[in-house]
Amino acid sequence: MVYSDSHLKLFALNSNPGLAEKISQFTGIPLGKLSSKQFSDGEIMINMEESVRSQDVFIIQSTSCPVNDHLWELLIMIDACKRASAHTINVVIPYFGYARQDRTATSREPITAKLVADMIVKAGADRVLTLDIHAVQVQGFFDIPVDNLFTVPLFADYYRRNGLFGDDVIVVAPKNSGIKRARSLAEYLESPIAIVDYEDDDKNRENGYVIGNVEGKRVILIDDILNTGVTFANAAKVVRNAGASEIYAVASHGLFTTNAAEILEQADIKEILVTDSVVTEHRKPLNVKYLSAAEYLANAILRIHEGRPVSPLFEHEKPQD
Amino acid sequence: MVYSDSHLKLFALNSNPGLAEKISQFTGIPLGKLSSKQFSDGEIMINMEESVRSQDVFIIQSTSCPVNDHLWELLIMIDACKRASAHTINVVIPYFGYARQDRTATSREPITAKLVADMIVKAGADRVLTLDIHAVQVQGFFDIPVDNLFTVPLFADYYRRNGLFGDDVIVVAPKNSGIKRARSLAEYLESPIAIVDYEDDDKNRENGYVIGNVEGKRVILIDDILNTGVTFANAAKVVRNAGASEIYAVASHGLFTTNAAEILEQADIKEILVTDSVVTEHRKPLNVKYLSAAEYLANAILRIHEGRPVSPLFEHEKPQD
Amino acid sequence: MVYSDSHLKLFALNSNPGLAEKISQFTGIPLGKLSSKQFSDGEIMINMEESVRSQDVFIIQSTSCPVNDHLWELLIMIDACKRASAHTINVVIPYFGYARQDRTATSREPITAKLVADMIVKAGADRVLTLDIHAVQVQGFFDIPVDNLFTVPLFADYYRRNGLFGDDVIVVAPKNSGIKRARSLAEYLESPIAIVDYEDDDKNRENGYVIGNVEGKRVILIDDILNTGVTFANAAKVVRNAGASEIYAVASHGLFTTNAAEILEQADIKEILVTDSVVTEHRKPLNVKYLSAAEYLANAILRIHEGRPVSPLFEHEKPQD
Amino acid sequence: MVYSDSHLKLFALNSNPGLAEKISQFTGIPLGKLSSKQFSDGEIMINMEESVRSQDVFIIQSTSCPVNDHLWELLIMIDACKRASAHTINVVIPYFGYARQDRTATSREPITAKLVADMIVKAGADRVLTLDIHAVQVQGFFDIPVDNLFTVPLFADYYRRNGLFGDDVIVVAPKNSGIKRARSLAEYLESPIAIVDYEDDDKNRENGYVIGNVEGKRVILIDDILNTGVTFANAAKVVRNAGASEIYAVASHGLFTTNAAEILEQADIKEILVTDSVVTEHRKPLNVKYLSAAEYLANAILRIHEGRPVSPLFEHEKPQD
Amino acid sequence: MVYSDSHLKLFALNSNPGLAEKISQFTGIPLGKLSSKQFSDGEIMINMEESVRSQDVFIIQSTSCPVNDHLWELLIMIDACKRASAHTINVVIPYFGYARQDRTATSREPITAKLVADMIVKAGADRVLTLDIHAVQVQGFFDIPVDNLFTVPLFADYYRRNGLFGDDVIVVAPKNSGIKRARSLAEYLESPIAIVDYEDDDKNRENGYVIGNVEGKRVILIDDILNTGVTFANAAKVVRNAGASEIYAVASHGLFTTNAAEILEQADIKEILVTDSVVTEHRKPLNVKYLSAAEYLANAILRIHEGRPVSPLFEHEKPQD
Amino acid sequence: MVYSDSHLKLFALNSNPGLAEKISQFTGIPLGKLSSKQFSDGEIMINMEESVRSQDVFIIQSTSCPVNDHLWELLIMIDACKRASAHTINVVIPYFGYARQDRTATSREPITAKLVADMIVKAGADRVLTLDIHAVQVQGFFDIPVDNLFTVPLFADYYRRNGLFGDDVIVVAPKNSGIKRARSLAEYLESPIAIVDYEDDDKNRENGYVIGNVEGKRVILIDDILNTGVTFANAAKVVRNAGASEIYAVASHGLFTTNAAEILEQADIKEILVTDSVVTEHRKPLNVKYLSAAEYLANAILRIHEGRPVSPLFEHEKPQD
Repeated sequence: MVYSDSHLKLFALNSNPGLAEKISQFTGIPLGKLSSKQFSDGEIMINMEESVRSQDVFIIQSTSCPVNDHLWELLIMIDACKRASAHTINVVIPYFGYARQDRTATSREPITAKLVADMIVKAGADRVLTLDIHAVQVQGFFDIPVDNLFTVPLFADYYRRNGLFGDDVIVVAPKNSGIKRARSLAEYLESPIAIVDYEDDDKNRENGYVIGNVEGKRVILIDDILNTGVTFANAAKVVRNAGASEIYAVASHGLFTTNAAEILEQADIKEILVTDSVVTEHRKPLNVKYLSAAEYLANAILRIHEGRPVSPLFEHEKPQD
Repeated sequence: MVYSDSHLKLFALNSNPGLAEKISQFTGIPLGKLSSKQFSDGEIMINMEESVRSQDVFIIQSTSCPVNDHLWELLIMIDACKRASAHTINVVIPYFGYARQDRTATSREPITAKLVADMIVKAGADRVLTLDIHAVQVQGFFDIPVDNLFTVPLFADYYRRNGLFGDDVIVVAPKNSGIKRARSLAEYLESPIAIVDYEDDDKNRENGYVIGNVEGKRVILIDDILNTGVTFANAAKVVRNAGASEIYAVASHGLFTTNAAEILEQADIKEILVTDSVVTEHRKPLNVKYLSAAEYLANAILRIHEGRPVSPLFEHEKPQD
Repeated sequence: MVYSDSHLKLFALNSNPGLAEKISQFTGIPLGKLSSKQFSDGEIMINMEESVRSQDVFIIQSTSCPVNDHLWELLIMIDACKRASAHTINVVIPYFGYARQDRTATSREPITAKLVADMIVKAGADRVLTLDIHAVQVQGFFDIPVDNLFTVPLFADYYRRNGLFGDDVIVVAPKNSGIKRARSLAEYLESPIAIVDYEDDDKNRENGYVIGNVEGKRVILIDDILNTGVTFANAAKVVRNAGASEIYAVASHGLFTTNAAEILEQADIKEILVTDSVVTEHRKPLNVKYLSAAEYLANAILRIHEGRPVSPLFEHEKPQD
Repeated sequence: MVYSDSHLKLFALNSNPGLAEKISQFTGIPLGKLSSKQFSDGEIMINMEESVRSQDVFIIQSTSCPVNDHLWELLIMIDACKRASAHTINVVIPYFGYARQDRTATSREPITAKLVADMIVKAGADRVLTLDIHAVQVQGFFDIPVDNLFTVPLFADYYRRNGLFGDDVIVVAPKNSGIKRARSLAEYLESPIAIVDYEDDDKNRENGYVIGNVEGKRVILIDDILNTGVTFANAAKVVRNAGASEIYAVASHGLFTTNAAEILEQADIKEILVTDSVVTEHRKPLNVKYLSAAEYLANAILRIHEGRPVSPLFEHEKPQD
Repeated sequence: MVYSDSHLKLFALNSNPGLAEKISQFTGIPLGKLSSKQFSDGEIMINMEESVRSQDVFIIQSTSCPVNDHLWELLIMIDACKRASAHTINVVIPYFGYARQDRTATSREPITAKLVADMIVKAGADRVLTLDIHAVQVQGFFDIPVDNLFTVPLFADYYRRNGLFGDDVIVVAPKNSGIKRARSLAEYLESPIAIVDYEDDDKNRENGYVIGNVEGKRVILIDDILNTGVTFANAAKVVRNAGASEIYAVASHGLFTTNAAEILEQADIKEILVTDSVVTEHRKPLNVKYLSAAEYLANAILRIHEGRPVSPLFEHEKPQD
Repeated sequence: MVYSDSHLKLFALNSNPGLAEKISQFTGIPLGKLSSKQFSDGEIMINMEESVRSQDVFIIQSTSCPVNDHLWELLIMIDACKRASAHTINVVIPYFGYARQDRTATSREPITAKLVADMIVKAGADRVLTLDIHAVQVQGFFDIPVDNLFTVPLFADYYRRNGLFGDDVIVVAPKNSGIKRARSLAEYLESPIAIVDYEDDDKNRENGYVIGNVEGKRVILIDDILNTGVTFANAAKVVRNAGASEIYAVASHGLFTTNAAEILEQADIKEILVTDSVVTEHRKPLNVKYLSAAEYLANAILRIHEGRPVSPLFEHEKPQD
């Protein structure tokens, strides 16, 4: 399929070429030609090999690890598009790095998520499209429109198709800050929720316990970012001790840093579900399952370009019993 | 006591003159002379009756109900100070209205908390001092320093002095979004936590239940904003049904709108604790207890003006057993 | 009539739904669906119930009494449109509140009209359309285009049709700051002008007198804002004492605050002419006559959207004798 | 006298070195060393010959004719001070050129006074000090503090000392837009006012007439800017025809362009009073009298630097009878 | 030829009406009607006599001598277009004045080229089109797109057509800072380069000498700005002494200030080539030859308006041997 | 030595702790306590362990390789200082990465040096202190003061002390863009200059030749950035072939990327002089000599903080013969 509008250009930077390629296929828009290389001193140089003058440009870049390189590559590309007279510059950030640094947790801490937002806007972006950003308040860090696509409908759809819903399933937040996300999935699955809490929060996580009753239930642990795997592994231990019959885990973004693969393979988790928002150099655990967000993002890009509402994408019907 | 620094001025606007007066007494700085009146067409006119040239000005204003009037009064005062050559303009907002509109909850919603932040900065403020702002991410909505004072240490101190701590006390979040605040108070009181959850969130709140075990325990319900009283009243019913022996409630900001007094007096709550951040025209429930935040705010103002760190104010020692 | 352009949306906020409805009819554009409610704590919440993505949005809102509420409602709506990806945001402010606070009249006064302009621009507006703004310099407070429609041609047309023009009519500024407006109407009516002046300006207005000669003439008092009615009532007394044969009064904006109706009914004025820019909760005087500005504003909106000049709207031919 | 504060520097640009020298003497602050030259291609090059690092810099420059050169010289000097790390940059503009272009008088006109304000602020100025700016609303064009010194008290003082006050004096605005300024002087002199109006405003000014009664009175014509002299000359003719016994004229800023000297010498005006805000290359009329504003400006500069209020400078006592 | 797009308007200001007229002819777009006059006090007043609402406006103005007047005329025109609702404002600056003040050469110098860029952007320009700007880094002074057209291809084309290329020609930078430009022309002409250097740089230029070997060669001296002619005259003397057989000179911008005509006529230069970017009041030397840049600029304007790339304009084929 | 001013704080980030330590010793100001760590996902987290409220903070960070990490670390630190109420934030960037991307060399290239400047300013920096920035025009990319220290005086001093000056020495720019830097060193050393040029610039550098005469002379090659060593190695070959008797090389910033050590050791260069602005992980050539810039930077920091001019640091006397 070839998209017929001659005023839309799609570019992929280096963080996730596979996802970009899929988005290109779903939209029917070929990826623009671009050279982005890193010199021996680490500096990035971008050359766009086709004109973007008067075009609506969409730049696809997850700001995943190495996050600082990916961010600069994105900022430099925005600058290049601005100076090359793009009509609008839309950045598609499936995984938005630094989003957890969204507040001054202790005295004199930076708010790096706001800094990143400011940098993107100052460089010249006109709009941001993200996927399940860590804290919804980060939308407010921007003065430009931010379309944040939710992943819970994707996951709910998958689990229902696999029979994981109803009263014998329980959605569990693996730490006390994740209750909203658990609540949202639980409503789709018509299941109850529970929370794993720790006595000595933020320090060591020895004495975890469940608030709620998971006994004899199939547990789905849900989080937005799967980083080292420790949170899921610990939570799995806690819910198993509390009598869970089967344990699943789902996260929007699978970073799998350091030895996450080992940790998660040793944990008592049947399947780990993530989207393809992040490409990682690390080994993935054997029990991982990828759900692609490409079609979802592709639809959003076309709706934005054509001036149609994005909100219908969020409307997922609950299947009839 | 009279404060000796001649470069610091304190002004009170119309939302909370009593709190401002107390802050004035604690700091030893008299309130600046000011006329702020509303014309017959609703427009506010401010005349400062003393010079602020080259002064560090602190303006005390809760943006409580009528929130739109109080916000404009604040913005107009900031403009007047800016044009009158104040050295720095510091706004002290014990209760920060519109803070709950901090994200796009459904499609096409504004993010009014960000709008308020932008207006305050654009008008000319150099710094904000708040008390337990609804979402900590709102700090990131500002590009100027925001010192957000926590109220939990004040409350913890009060409860410990009254013997409400330890294992037979349980801190309960009256809705699932308040778990962080409950966790924080629980750590000060060395008590466990629980959550009141509702099956059909955000719609009607008929089918509440407790996640966690409150049976036979003294419950402290904690929230940041006490508005209509319905959240506390519902949660009290749920925890009573779940076997709570005694119920307390605490909130940073007591708005007590509409018939909150009636609702709360009928609820099975022994004492409702709030700070004096908000003056309300409505009747307060008989079982309310006010803890003043004036000394806390006064200390923060002096530390800011003198260039000393504000963080030591947050360090409350746990009493020795 | 239905307007055929699918990229133009019209929204009415709460200040003046009747005028908005008329503008909708003249343009053939239905008013967009919108929910704007005020919570029990006074906070305004807006939900747009239809997409504005890529639309030219026109928001109709007079910032009349309660001015602070109407201003915040406008700012919040602008923010919602900006975040919802409107193509352009055009605010139609038939009555622009706070416009009289356009200078530092005494030391340390704010310039609230500039503050309002800054807030509207910072919130995200792209253009302003107003009707006879108090001081033309307020246009310069904005860095975005401001189209200010003059009302004098409307009034002149009305008076000429009613035989009020020529040498036996005299246009009188009821206070010395209004001479420009009087001069403008006088040119349309081919009549002379005079001014009511006061010995002790701005304080009490006891000793008024006429500069110029009104004896035996039909007087038209003209002002831009009719607020309490006192200015017109006093001026009527002065010109009557100076020998005026008949007295009319005309103002662009009829606020009629407090007991303006009583004051004006007791004044010796035959007819008071105002536009429908302002809806007031107060009683209107019996001798008021409303001239609608709806068609005028509707034409301006269409011309702006279609990229045609607005200036031809100002060209009113003088009728041939 | 030498001013003892080592953090204050005064610089004079090329428009009015004489006034700057006087201000230097009144303040006791020597003028900073500076080379400002114009190359053969018309470009201005400024070299500051002493450090301004961490200094409060006051730059004295009237933006009089050649206004474009004087404005660029001012902007370039602001840029130089900003890059050279001045602590604050204060621009003293005794005559503020382009101030009359303060509104869109006809369609598609620029608002050059706002443009000038924006340029000054963007270049890096922190504060403006002016003398009787054409329209007070121009203060609102700035987002930085603007101290506008009134000249009427200076003029009133002069006229009272010369016996020109009371009921046989009448202050006359030479065109209908100047009534506020006439009113202000009249209050100081305890005299009545009148206005010269023209039938065909803004075109040719043939048919002038007086609104008010000047017969047998000593007339003081007042305006802010004396440019070609035509306004005063015409008004003098009108009031003479209306029976004025003696005619004086006063303006804050004497530009005396083209053949103003001839026009004014031929007009029936006894004395023309102006301040020394403007240096002109043109011949001045023989009956001109200069009142220096240097001490007034010098006092304002010191008060600003020392953080003392400027407003007391405006308080001129009316002499006791 | 008449250009068919109704959304493009071309305006000429006063610096170079001849070039603007030629651009108009090449594009087929008539010059917009405009009145721009200077009052007796030097202030510029612009009235656009046709609507620019929703138009892409291109304003043609070289900021040549009198540079300050031309710059203000440009800024005022931008402001007028912005307030009159132009869709985009594109400024075409064939000669960009103040471009040499692009760095702080000695302590406390301004960077006036950056100041000019800031003023143009702040006034409201959306894009700049220039011709061979002095330092390419000045593009980076803008946050808006800057299309800088190179003149070297034009000159190379001319010289090749006239047989001036190959090994017996040598391109010489007349001072050491111009080597890049010499290198560029040399590549087009397939000739070597040399440099005229001075022992005591920037002071007096007595002791010039050639780095490189010009003996027996035809020399083309190249510079970007020809101002007083001294640089070329001195360099001609140096290369003649070093054995050059014939001397040509080429510059993008011919200012010819003061007595440049005399100086250059006395120098041993066969032909001086410049573009028509600058109109000068001074006498031009008899041996000057003008190459028009009008077609080049006209093509760039059309490509920008139509969203086609500008870069193909730079691709000049080397003629086949 | 301990510096007595309590309002000055110095912080070192991770790029060059050795240089920061030396600056700390020269200034007598201890380095502030700071934790800056990188998480497993590459995100940087900074915690300042001491208050910076009301302090003048100087942050020392070369943006050398890994440049993107070092830049983000710097930006995050600036944000942290801003939110923690630092009085001023001064960034000391001895090596300024990305400075070579200072123009659009080919179509659609970014201007990354400007982007970096914008990011630093937007994050909240008040001033920049650099050492021999690649292009002096980059100063103009900032709207805040930039103090750029020259390295040529340091190098000249070293060479004169070692007898390398006068007529038998020649300073050579190793490529044609470096002539200004060569000229500057040559004036200090009272030596002539030459340039190495290449026939096919920017592509391959096979056919280099010398413009000027190096025969029998001691050559000093000078550049600002020594990256891969290829430029120096090629130039050394060219000047040796042209008869140079001895070859030295000097650069302000020694990156020594990839196999620079091998390349330079094999080149015919007697000694390579660089400052300690950059720490590299790569092997350095055996013939490298480091000159520390620490005292120079320390003096500049103290002068800036104390409001004394920085320019005297640039005044290096030529030693008397």
